Order: sequence, then structure tokens, then C-alpha cells
Amino acid sequence: MSSPLFGTICLVGIGLINSSIARAARLHGLAARIVTLDASEQACETALRLGIVDAAGSDPAALLAEADLIMVGTPVGAMAAVGQAIGPHLKAGAIVSDVGSVKMAVVRDLLPHLPDTVHFVPGHPIAGTEHSGPEAGFAELFQGRWCILTPLPGTDPGAIDKVTQLWTAMGSMIEIMEPLHHDKVLAITSHLPHLIAYTIVGTASDLEGDMQQEVIKFSASGFRDFTRIAASDPIMWRDIFLNNKEAVLEIIQRFTEDLTALQRAIRWGEAETLETHFRETRAIRRAIIDAKQA
Amino acid sequence: MSSPLFGTICLVGIGLINSSIARAARLHGLAARIVTLDASEQACETALRLGIVDAAGSDPAALLAEADLIMVGTPVGAMAAVGQAIGPHLKAGAIVSDVGSVKMAVVRDLLPHLPDTVHFVPGHPIAGTEHSGPEAGFAELFQGRWCILTPLPGTDPGAIDKVTQLWTAMGSMIEIMEPLHHDKVLAITSHLPHLIAYTIVGTASDLEGDMQQEVIKFSASGFRDFTRIAASDPIMWRDIFLNNKEAVLEIIQRFTEDLTALQRAIRWGEAETLETHFRETRAIRRAIIDAKQA
Ligand SMILES: NC(=O)c1ccc[n+]([C@@H]2O[C@H](COP(=O)([O-])OP(=O)(O)OC[C@H]3O[C@@H](n4cnc5c(N)ncnc54)[C@H](OP(=O)(O)O)[C@@H]3O)[C@@H](O)[C@H]2O)c1
Ligand SMILES: NC(=O)c1ccc[n+]([C@@H]2O[C@H](COP(=O)([O-])OP(=O)(O)OC[C@H]3O[C@@H](n4cnc5c(N)ncnc54)[C@H](OP(=O)(O)O)[C@@H]3O)[C@@H](O)[C@H]2O)c1
Repeated sequence: MSSPLFGTICLVGIGLINSSIARAARLHGLAARIVTLDASEQACETALRLGIVDAAGSDPAALLAEADLIMVGTPVGAMAAVGQAIGPHLKAGAIVSDVGSVKMAVVRDLLPHLPDTVHFVPGHPIAGTEHSGPEAGFAELFQGRWCILTPLPGTDPGAIDKVTQLWTAMGSMIEIMEPLHHDKVLAITSHLPHLIAYTIVGTASDLEGDMQQEVIKFSASGFRDFTRIAASDPIMWRDIFLNNKEAVLEIIQRFTEDLTALQRAIRWGEAETLETHFRETRAIRRAIIDAKQA
Repeated sequence: MSSPLFGTICLVGIGLINSSIARAARLHGLAARIVTLDASEQACETALRLGIVDAAGSDPAALLAEADLIMVGTPVGAMAAVGQAIGPHLKAGAIVSDVGSVKMAVVRDLLPHLPDTVHFVPGHPIAGTEHSGPEAGFAELFQGRWCILTPLPGTDPGAIDKVTQLWTAMGSMIEIMEPLHHDKVLAITSHLPHLIAYTIVGTASDLEGDMQQEVIKFSASGFRDFTRIAASDPIMWRDIFLNNKEAVLEIIQRFTEDLTALQRAIRWGEAETLETHFRETRAIRRAIIDAKQA
């Protein structure tokens, strides 16, 4: 039998994403040993009970000593603190990666705390659900989904290759991108949709009592699709918006202009403007179906 | 064997909704005979080939002569023309109903063309998909979903009861509402979500070529959920917005104010404002799950 891709993987934070990595890495035999570093005793106990890690605890020295790959799976606002906590305990030659939803801020906050002896390969799997915590993960989460890696120039190609092999083995396709470009693309594909969903669900929850009950009752007509993504973790999303401010503000601006144009067309009864706009958007749906991401 | 609820049902327009009614009515034995009146020869042929109707064609006199229930399933902008076409041919005592997504405009446009000898019970099933046409329908579409009826004061209770029995037999729960109230509730649960989805997908399709390809590729991060509802029929949605102008403009206004507040919180890094807002919206999701409409 060939030896696994990594000796020890240490998952920093054992939430939805990292617990899915634990399950997938185990399923595909990608590590000899999987451990997790998490401040929450309860999360550690859950992970051990689920049998998805071999060891769990809050002591960085003990858990990082043998780690060949460190995967950081905390909210992006915690990256600086995580860097401080893990930096001094990393083994020379180890690879540090992460799954954070923004990449400029992770490079800014995590990298300064890492010793020169380790390799840094930031990443972001384009997969997830609205649920959180170690119980919510599952091994198939990354199957058929993209994972974006944003290594800095000069990163050891061997380290990038090993992280690529990990994601590929878990079923993902890899795309390499610059961190800034990543943040711009995700501002439109992910951050704006979530902000819009949070907004519209908020608008509904501000309605008077009776109306609100009816909105819930008749939500199958479109609204409920937004509530699912607006049920995502508040801390995670707070951190994303605070850490991708520029790109998000820029795309909100464009969106608002476009909404104003449609609003105007409705007000003035411009049937053709509406119909033409609604026809064009169908092409994008078709392209997504063709790209097998529907 | 007890006799079916209706002798003949005539479906005016055989699209997604009416073809689903045809299938469900057949499945549950709700009519002795089901016919469709549709201007499109192709749609009639398809409906006959699928075996979901007993007769199909474009001659109102022939198809309406025996109809006990007439269900209008055309875009709401076509209601006046439909009224003109069917009005002179309706049997005394027949019930006219519809499935249009707005109700004030249907009352305004359809009712004036109906003779006093028929009963008018406007309705709106809160169920649908983004697909159109007779092939897209299925018998289970209304199962577990609400159907809103908006009869005017003074309508024969017997007629309301028969329409109620039809929807109940197809698996729906019934809610009675005033047309104006219906339009306000649907503006938030359905019309605003669709407008927002059309807007954001439009914003994405205006991006430069490369960026657009990437948006499609990485759409699984939130965006694709919007593209599904933005793939709905352009004519249907044009008509909805033009015929529920006031309520839609009012709710866009509220939405825009709320979006501006979140935008401001992002700009000024107000972590707590964001987190609190994102926490509150989860309650609505939970309520929808509890109401079994998720
Ligand atoms: N969910 C998605 O759809 C998705 C998709 C792609 C990428 N991501 C990214 O993946 C990362 C993890 O997301 P997730 O959905 O897996 O979240 P999650 O289920 O909420 O898990 C977050 C983990 O981070 C830990 N954590 C929270 N605050 C921390 C802090 N200040 N210091 C150290 N650890 C902390 C939590 O520990 P406790 O056990 O103590 O709470 C938990 O183990 C985030 O950066 C997110 O942006 C998420
Ligand atoms: N789709 C949904 O999710 C949904 C949900 C609830 C309610 N509704 C409402 O249900 C109604 C039908 O929607 P649908 O989704 O079933 O639409 P659809 O599949 O596009 O079918 C529309 C039908 O109306 C006919 N039609 C179109 N324009 C017409 C005109 N000017 N005069 C006469 N007939 C015309 C079409 O005939 P051809 O065969 O000639 O094209 C077709 O048979 C609409 O009022 C809509 O607002 C839709």
C-alpha cells in the first residue's frame, strides 16, 4: 500500500468545512493521522465522539509538533489570533493552508505570524451549506466543486502541488488565482448574494406581526430560497463583509444602480425594458447548468 | 362510485400551472372531462399527446359550451383579452377561476367581461417552478402548498366551496384573502425576491467577459440560487411587475433603505450592527422550517 499524502493533518477549528475535510481525508486515506486544535472543549469532544479525528484539544504545542499540513478553518476575523497561537509551534517544512472565504485579509493577517521555514498556500473551497459545527460536515461536500488556491509568487511548487492533490482527492477541481482577483470574483458570486438575502429577510422581519406570519406561510413563492442562505453563520458573514469591504461596496453600488433602473421601468410601465432584461438573465442560468454547477 | 366534483373543466392556456391542474385533476378523478382552450396549435397537440386533456383547440364556443369550471392560466397581462374571448360563451352557472400571480389586476381586467350568470372565484396557488409549458407540469406540484382564493364580497358560497374542494383534493391548503392584501403579501414573498434575483443576475451578466466566465464557474457559493429564480418566464414576470406596481415599488423602497443601512455598516466597519442583523434573520428561516414550507 502506498503511504498517505500527509503524515499528520492538523485542522485548526473543527467546524463545517474542517470537519468535512476530516471526513473526506479519512475516507480517501489522505493522512496517517488527523488531529484538531479547537478552543471549544465541546467541539473537541464531538469530533472525537464522531470518530473523525484521532486527537483533539486546545494545546498548540502538542497538536502541531508533528503536523505536516495545517488547515485553518476559522472565521476570517480570527486569522491574526490563530497566526499568533500557531506560529511558534509549526514544524519546519510544514504547509499552512486555510479555507477562508476572503483571501487578501488572510494573507494580511495570517502570513506575518508564520516562520520562514513553513510554506503558505491559502485556499477557498467553493462549497458549503448554511449549517455550522462538526456535526454538519460530510465527506462529499467538495465533490464536483471548485477549490481556489491563491499562493503568493515564489511559493514552493511542491507545497502547492500537495495541497492540490489533497483537494483533487476529495473530489474538487483546482483553480489558481491572485488573492485580490479572488476577492473580486467572490464579492459578486457569494458576498453580494448573501448580503442581499440577509437584507430581504431583514426587510420581511421588520413587517408588522400579521404580515410577517403570512410571509412565512407563503414563502414558497420565492422568499424561502433567500432565507436558506440568510441562515448562514452570523460571525462568519460579519467577518467576510468586514474583510472584503472594497470589493463588496463596489459591487453593491453596481447592483443598486441596476435595481434603480428596473424600479424606474416598473414605475413608468416600460414593458419592453423589463421583458428584455428578464430574457437576458436566462442565458446565465443555462451557462451554469452547462458548467454542471447548478 | 360517486360522481366527480366537476362535469367539464376547461383550462384556458395549458402552461406549467394549468397542465399541472390537468394532471392532478385526472389523477384524483375531479372531472368527468378536461379540455383546454389555447391559441397555440403546438401546445394543444402536446397536451393531447401527453394525454392530459380530452380535447384541445382554439375555438371558445366549442370548448366552453359544457364547461362547469373555467380555469384561466395565462400571464396576467392577457386577462382582459381572455375575458373578451371567453365571456360570450360561458354557460350559465359556470364557475370562472384563475391562477394569476396578482389578484387586483385580474379582478379589474377579467371580471368586467364575465356575464352575471357565472360565478367568479379568483385564486393563486403558491407553487411553481422556473419552467414553462405543458411538458413542465406535474400532478404533485400543489401537494402541501397553499392556494389563496380572493373572492369578492357577495360571491356564491357554493362556488367558493367547489373551488376549495378542487384545490384541497389536489393536496393544497386554502387561505381566503382580499385581493389587495394578497398583492401586498406576494409583493414581499415573491415579487421582490424575483426582482432582486433578476437584478443581481443582470449585474453579473454586465461584467467583462472573463469575469463573467468566473462568476458562472464559481456560482455554487451563493449566486446560483438566484439564477434559478431569475430563469422564470420573462413575459409572466413582466406582467406581474406591471400589474402590481404600487405594492412592488413600496417594498423596493423598504428593501433599498435596509440595504443602504447594511452598506453603511460595512463601510464604517460596524461589526456589531452586522452580526446582530445576521442573527435576527435566522429566526425567520426557523419559522419557515417549522411551517413545513422549507
Ligand atoms: N460555511 C461555508 O459555506 C463556507 C464555505 C467556504 C469557506 N468557508 C470558510 O471556512 C471557514 C470556516 O467556516 P465553517 O462554515 O466551517 O464555520 P463553523 O462551522 O462555524 O466553524 C468555525 C470554526 O472556527 C472556530 N472559531 C470561531 N471563532 C474562532 C476564534 N476567534 N479563534 C479560533 N477559532 C475560532 C470555531 O470554534 P468553536 O468550536 O470554538 O466555535 C469552529 O471550530 C470560514 O473562514 C469561512 O469563511 C465557509
Ligand atoms: N410559474 C409559476 O411559478 C406560477 C406560480 C403561480 C401562479 N402562476 C401564474 O399562473 C399563470 C400561468 O403561468 P405558467 O407558469 O403556467 O405559464 P406558462 O407555462 O408560460 O403558460 C402560460 C400559458 O398562457 C398562454 N398565453 C400566453 N400569452 C397569452 C395570451 N396573450 N393570450 C392567451 N393565452 C396566453 C400560453 O399559451 P401558448 O401555449 O400560446 O404560449 C400558455 O398556455 C400566470 O398568470 C402566472 O402568473 C405561475
